[in-house]
Amino acid sequence: MEIKVVMGQRLLRANEEVAHRVREHLARNSCLMVNLISSPGAGKTTLLEATLGRLRERWRIGVIEGDVYTVRDAARIAHLGIPVVQINTAGVCHLNASMVERALGELGEGPFDLIFVENVGNLVCPAEFDLGEDAKVALLSVTEGIDKPAKYPLVFERACLVLVTKGDLIPYLDFDLAEVERDVRQVNPEVPLIVTSAKTGEGMEAWLQWLEEQLRRKKKVSSVTV
Amino acid sequence: MEIKVVMGQRLLRANEEVAHRVREHLARNSCLMVNLISSPGAGKTTLLEATLGRLRERWRIGVIEGDVYTVRDAARIAHLGIPVVQINTAGVCHLNASMVERALGELGEGPFDLIFVENVGNLVCPAEFDLGEDAKVALLSVTEGIDKPAKYPLVFERACLVLVTKGDLIPYLDFDLAEVERDVRQVNPEVPLIVTSAKTGEGMEAWLQWLEEQLRRKKKVSSVTV
Repeated sequence: MEIKVVMGQRLLRANEEVAHRVREHLARNSCLMVNLISSPGAGKTTLLEATLGRLRERWRIGVIEGDVYTVRDAARIAHLGIPVVQINTAGVCHLNASMVERALGELGEGPFDLIFVENVGNLVCPAEFDLGEDAKVALLSVTEGIDKPAKYPLVFERACLVLVTKGDLIPYLDFDLAEVERDVRQVNPEVPLIVTSAKTGEGMEAWLQWLEEQLRRKKKVSSVTV
Repeated sequence: MEIKVVMGQRLLRANEEVAHRVREHLARNSCLMVNLISSPGAGKTTLLEATLGRLRERWRIGVIEGDVYTVRDAARIAHLGIPVVQINTAGVCHLNASMVERALGELGEGPFDLIFVENVGNLVCPAEFDLGEDAKVALLSVTEGIDKPAKYPLVFERACLVLVTKGDLIPYLDFDLAEVERDVRQVNPEVPLIVTSAKTGEGMEAWLQWLEEQLRRKKKVSSVTV
């Protein structure tokens, strides 16, 4: 185990250098990058589909899909006519900054205002890797149970926004939103939390407003610093 | 990435040696070890609670709980009066054989007929690590969506049994069991698949029968080889 930790730290340092390059590249292009992290099946791709439909008229959007093997998620995004690159990690359980840097190079025709990165479905490792993104967004589906923020605190600590997904299923579950919120606030006191449902549209307006606010802020900041 | 793969292989080889020791120890004690793997929130601990209640009169059972930080799952098992050891991986996204070997030493008063290992909630990395167990059991909750066996094939390929959990929620979802079964069979043609619900008790008899069959087989094999 000790050896693994040492290797891990060296890898994380190398990752940080690449993430810094990605961040500079995005700043030069006034492009916002949002990194979606959740367990498998929490609804990242479904949220993306609904979001792209609403934002594509206003902003130039690209998507980077992370998956262990398949291209299923990228196919769903490409079906909408949105530029998308699939990263297959071939067994690795998270995206790192080098993968994202290469994917940015392959995303083609830019410039983009907004790039979504859909990370590999995993509540542990993706939280540790800086991809050069502006914001990590943590998704937690109501069917996963209320104990996840306490059990996987790092992803909720590093998130700029928490989306509680599949809100339409709450009536059929023992799900205590207040307890989830309390556990999230313990590690991240100020983070906004929105209950969403791709099925009913609940929370979509608040999520889109949050995105628009980040986009406006990024455009302002970038035009000052560049 | 290349460096990481090399390190990974070295780690996996070291892990195999320890797993071999664990397997020999279990064989000497005619003890069956079952390794439960799933996404976070698929219902591993809830299944265990229901299972322990039914089996504890017939078999001597111990539990090894893997979690990144908390002891919540172990507390739930300890509450039932079952011997349990919690492994906190402190950021690592899977259990390895060394962690399990140490936990076995700490599980105390044996001998046990059956040890359950509840892995860290993660559909990727736990599949790669041999813990010396007799069987990996993959849990997939119906709320995770039908594409998981195709997206995370390794865990389904290596599983000796697939449990589809939260079956009581199927009426509220678009869940196609036939498609899940077909994708599972693509990587693991012979694996049994049982739909379960901890809420209604659906599938529990079939799961308990499967466990009893493994226990009987292990007792026979061990008494021949030792």
